[in-house]
Amino acid sequence: MSLSAKHRVAVLGASGYTGAELLRLLLTHPHVEIAALTADRHVGKDIAEVFPQFLDVGLPRLVSVDAVPFDSIDAVFCCLPHGTTQDIIKGIRTDHPTVRVFDLSADFRLQDVELYAKWYGEHRAPALQPEAVYGLVEVNRDKIRTAMLVAVPGCYPTSAQLPLYPLLKAGKILTEDIIVDAKSGVSGAGRSAKEGSLFTEVTEGIHAYGVANHRHRPEIEQGLSWAAGQPVVISFTPHLMPMSRGILSTMYVKLAPGVTADDLRTTLAQAYAGEPFVKVLPAGQAPQTRHVRGTNRLHIGVFADTLPGRAIVFGAEDNLTKGASGQALQCFNVAFGLPETLGLSGLALFP
Amino acid sequence: MSLSAKHRVAVLGASGYTGAELLRLLLTHPHVEIAALTADRHVGKDIAEVFPQFLDVGLPRLVSVDAVPFDSIDAVFCCLPHGTTQDIIKGIRTDHPTVRVFDLSADFRLQDVELYAKWYGEHRAPALQPEAVYGLVEVNRDKIRTAMLVAVPGCYPTSAQLPLYPLLKAGKILTEDIIVDAKSGVSGAGRSAKEGSLFTEVTEGIHAYGVANHRHRPEIEQGLSWAAGQPVVISFTPHLMPMSRGILSTMYVKLAPGVTADDLRTTLAQAYAGEPFVKVLPAGQAPQTRHVRGTNRLHIGVFADTLPGRAIVFGAEDNLTKGASGQALQCFNVAFGLPETLGLSGLALFP
Amino acid sequence: MSLSAKHRVAVLGASGYTGAELLRLLLTHPHVEIAALTADRHVGKDIAEVFPQFLDVGLPRLVSVDAVPFDSIDAVFCCLPHGTTQDIIKGIRTDHPTVRVFDLSADFRLQDVELYAKWYGEHRAPALQPEAVYGLVEVNRDKIRTAMLVAVPGCYPTSAQLPLYPLLKAGKILTEDIIVDAKSGVSGAGRSAKEGSLFTEVTEGIHAYGVANHRHRPEIEQGLSWAAGQPVVISFTPHLMPMSRGILSTMYVKLAPGVTADDLRTTLAQAYAGEPFVKVLPAGQAPQTRHVRGTNRLHIGVFADTLPGRAIVFGAEDNLTKGASGQALQCFNVAFGLPETLGLSGLALFP
Amino acid sequence: MSLSAKHRVAVLGASGYTGAELLRLLLTHPHVEIAALTADRHVGKDIAEVFPQFLDVGLPRLVSVDAVPFDSIDAVFCCLPHGTTQDIIKGIRTDHPTVRVFDLSADFRLQDVELYAKWYGEHRAPALQPEAVYGLVEVNRDKIRTAMLVAVPGCYPTSAQLPLYPLLKAGKILTEDIIVDAKSGVSGAGRSAKEGSLFTEVTEGIHAYGVANHRHRPEIEQGLSWAAGQPVVISFTPHLMPMSRGILSTMYVKLAPGVTADDLRTTLAQAYAGEPFVKVLPAGQAPQTRHVRGTNRLHIGVFADTLPGRAIVFGAEDNLTKGASGQALQCFNVAFGLPETLGLSGLALFP
Repeated sequence: MSLSAKHRVAVLGASGYTGAELLRLLLTHPHVEIAALTADRHVGKDIAEVFPQFLDVGLPRLVSVDAVPFDSIDAVFCCLPHGTTQDIIKGIRTDHPTVRVFDLSADFRLQDVELYAKWYGEHRAPALQPEAVYGLVEVNRDKIRTAMLVAVPGCYPTSAQLPLYPLLKAGKILTEDIIVDAKSGVSGAGRSAKEGSLFTEVTEGIHAYGVANHRHRPEIEQGLSWAAGQPVVISFTPHLMPMSRGILSTMYVKLAPGVTADDLRTTLAQAYAGEPFVKVLPAGQAPQTRHVRGTNRLHIGVFADTLPGRAIVFGAEDNLTKGASGQALQCFNVAFGLPETLGLSGLALFP
Repeated sequence: MSLSAKHRVAVLGASGYTGAELLRLLLTHPHVEIAALTADRHVGKDIAEVFPQFLDVGLPRLVSVDAVPFDSIDAVFCCLPHGTTQDIIKGIRTDHPTVRVFDLSADFRLQDVELYAKWYGEHRAPALQPEAVYGLVEVNRDKIRTAMLVAVPGCYPTSAQLPLYPLLKAGKILTEDIIVDAKSGVSGAGRSAKEGSLFTEVTEGIHAYGVANHRHRPEIEQGLSWAAGQPVVISFTPHLMPMSRGILSTMYVKLAPGVTADDLRTTLAQAYAGEPFVKVLPAGQAPQTRHVRGTNRLHIGVFADTLPGRAIVFGAEDNLTKGASGQALQCFNVAFGLPETLGLSGLALFP
Repeated sequence: MSLSAKHRVAVLGASGYTGAELLRLLLTHPHVEIAALTADRHVGKDIAEVFPQFLDVGLPRLVSVDAVPFDSIDAVFCCLPHGTTQDIIKGIRTDHPTVRVFDLSADFRLQDVELYAKWYGEHRAPALQPEAVYGLVEVNRDKIRTAMLVAVPGCYPTSAQLPLYPLLKAGKILTEDIIVDAKSGVSGAGRSAKEGSLFTEVTEGIHAYGVANHRHRPEIEQGLSWAAGQPVVISFTPHLMPMSRGILSTMYVKLAPGVTADDLRTTLAQAYAGEPFVKVLPAGQAPQTRHVRGTNRLHIGVFADTLPGRAIVFGAEDNLTKGASGQALQCFNVAFGLPETLGLSGLALFP
Repeated sequence: MSLSAKHRVAVLGASGYTGAELLRLLLTHPHVEIAALTADRHVGKDIAEVFPQFLDVGLPRLVSVDAVPFDSIDAVFCCLPHGTTQDIIKGIRTDHPTVRVFDLSADFRLQDVELYAKWYGEHRAPALQPEAVYGLVEVNRDKIRTAMLVAVPGCYPTSAQLPLYPLLKAGKILTEDIIVDAKSGVSGAGRSAKEGSLFTEVTEGIHAYGVANHRHRPEIEQGLSWAAGQPVVISFTPHLMPMSRGILSTMYVKLAPGVTADDLRTTLAQAYAGEPFVKVLPAGQAPQTRHVRGTNRLHIGVFADTLPGRAIVFGAEDNLTKGASGQALQCFNVAFGLPETLGLSGLALFP
């Protein structure tokens, strides 16, 4: 397929926030044709009835998953909640084996299906798990090139793994006592109507949730263990704060003997030199989620701690973009051999 | 100049919000080369020190206005505060007559320089005023094509004029008793440090300001008077509310005899048929600023009022985009004969 | 009953926002004993499990309405949704006729039960309607003193009626062309989980809703008609904006012949002289909802309009306090012959 | 002086946020007469011109510090910025030795004046430092009873010290590796006009600031060292987030051998049993800043960490109340032998 050809894609679950974000990005992609959109509760509607920002842009009407013409589809983005996802993807992989699947749910992220079962309930497509490739592009690019099923990483895991992966891999920090204090915007909770996501319950305040008990911890630990070459257990505390988008992970780490915070910054800068989306800030600069809002960027900052032998590493991203739909599109670009920044070159909407 | 060539542009006042927004858009424009950026207080700095979202995107360093190589520049976007703007633009127009100027300040918006003086202080370049073209593209497109100096409309005026212009022009509404109740985000106040723009002073509340005494009223009246072919005086009450971007103008108008709210919607739909940025919503739908955030779109809604003979017309825009930098870029595209949506095709960042 | 005695009160529907706000106020009231709290979905729980701000303050556990010891109760605050309210209040008024009822729902606000039926559905206790007193204290104080059933006014109606009532009564403004453009915080929608109340759907934007079709319009018109002594029809457009609390009503009115905006301000100042909660701001000052947040105050501002013969009147309140629970407590104080400010003397939490 | 008598107090610096918060509280205090308010930039004004929430409540006009009748004043609350504070307090303590001073600035918090000099500049009243009592009431109550100069603790230090003090004192946690990840609202930055405090710069995002370099760290370390009986060095990272009020400190600590997270909770519950303002939440519950907004409360939560031998301790407060003005008033109540909750019994404004 030539570079100028258009790949036909379907977006399953287009009425949720990751679906909408993906559409926003896909609409700027020169080599994508959005062939089908699904939303079970809104079959037959114009997507603009669900998301008025898409008024009059020529998108196809919402259909059910059954109505997607998978035979003429090159790639599927699956923005469905975990659980149902497994059955649908199993069906696609079985009946339409040439369709590449980019799954934004958690269903295929954990290689260990028993670990999956512990956090999410029994896995209904365990046989597919081995073929799933973890879509953390900067780490796993080569495998993604040929992957037919990409498990796009979670929002928190992306913000924690990208800053820590090169440090663990290079042995610059210890595997013990890694503390991830994460702050997230509300869009991570999706568009479903929950008391805890109401404006009145979220604005003007902050609180931790899922303390020592959040599903994204095993995913982070899986990635860090790959990097370290040994099992890593972390402390992970997510906080919900009054903003729509953004995750800031503040990470407290122990330096390997003889290593300084400046060394960490250098290691990261080298690891991500040439990467279009991961940027290491100059010394003294702490990243702000605002400056990556709506983009596929992740900004990293590194500081020496006041506690000797420790450092503080920040990772800031947009949970819906680099933490979900943007990264999914980045995986798509890699898988289809396209320039990695297509559809993803936008900079932050700030202020 | 061929379509594929790049036009060299300078952005004067790149360290303010309209400057940043313009850069965000220009960076996605295929036929623009950003040749110079100025910011008097930040000369010599990388723009990323002022706006970290521009980290590592290859923009030129900030210089003073004197250091801009106007000889090799095709267009200047002037994002400076009113007043100083006049002198600088006079200098450019005099010394570099082939440079097209797109002025985002209020300096050349009011054709009547005495009216200008009343609201902004004495005009220091009155001789230039006659050559300035008011840059409301959907209304003034033809004049903009050949304009050398475009006065880009203000944020409030855009949100009020675009919905009302066709209605007045077609005689569908009366010129009397037009009431514009406008609600704006805080970015309209710019980046200067003012007590009234502090987070703590703005969040969790709303208030009117400049009641019956706001500088944008004469600009709105000027445009509506052009449309009506007679002097129009309006009631205009702006409110400041806790959001960064967006203006919603709720407009209470009197229908001409025999005209219905549905007629207004039809008139508007016809007037803006084919326009890429102005969209008339279906009956029953009220526009939200969120759905045009970060875009050059303006969404219009029309409702019958409970008061007989009256209707309610809504205009929703992003004050920094369609209300400022986006519209400036739209003017640029028109003036240089480019497709009008270049650099402006992005959809709203929602949520 | 002596002034120092405590009145035993029950709060029905304590797990909603008006219930919580009422508790906050009642806990500072020297002559109130909170004898019972109900919340059907939370029977048996400590209220602090529902609203952690009440941790360890000695409130009774949540019970069902059936379990309230009405025989030993002096007053009931009914914070239930409309509809169910009617049956419960009918039961109380029948079986416990000495219990005073303060109903925060809409159920007994409209004197015309057919009008009620049109907006809310058939009324199931129409026989009770004639005994209900509309609890707009500053207007209806005398009737409230002896009322057994007080219909506490709605949030929007309070913000619009208090500023306009004295003006219509004194004939200072015309009854025609009254336009109420209202902006409300999200708490007005209550604590129920609705997509439209999610943080992500509300933050960073504004939109109108219920345009020309909101249930509070007939209630406002009822009050204004009483004031004018003739039927008044208004234009009413509510907007939802990103704040928890607060309503600002911006009202566009026509002056009676010979009357000025200053006259309006004088009329209002005289009408509310001595009132502890209604304050008329000096000329030139527009009220902010922030400055009455969490209080029973309503701030009024008056401006001449640019349109001749017109004025702009602002009313700012906290929708949960003066617009609901505070006003209910004010009614209670009046009904029980207590100083009107008991439990209501707090000033705004600002910033 | 009898309990019913009124103590005459002066508030220096009434035009800032801590001044306003103090006034809000003092106005509900039955034994306080507000005798003087100062604000250098607003001499002669009504405080309602500066803070409209105080409209018509009978407060004295703003004067300069020189005009305060210290001879008839019992207590001074000093809400001035550090630095100037020292000279003024020195003058008061010298010329009016019976006046009790409650200083909300940082000027007398650090016992070591050289440490003070390192972070704030040279101390101009070092001789006064030894008489200053650190006003963390729950820890220092006895000394405050007789103190003539109380250094009211900082906002961050209060949120970190109260949860950790009893744990260190009882030897339940180790002194090493204490990590305080704090999230603060914007009001902590005061009312001065700074770019970094603008709504547009703060909303919809989060970032750390003063990383490993914030003035409140030495103050926290001072208190924790007192508790531990040995020098304690901590890691302290403050973050700025989009809310007006509130601080949440998430603290990662190491358990002493054999100690569990439940033990920590028990230790804290015992330490604060009977305390009106410090509340330890049940197991499994993480505190939210919303639930203490506008109150003098501090809510503590304790969780076992996933890292063995570690626990997570949360402290949530309102930075302007328990973190500043409320605590100052609590100190005042203690110093004047009044019930500690006078003026401070209000519960959170939520939603």
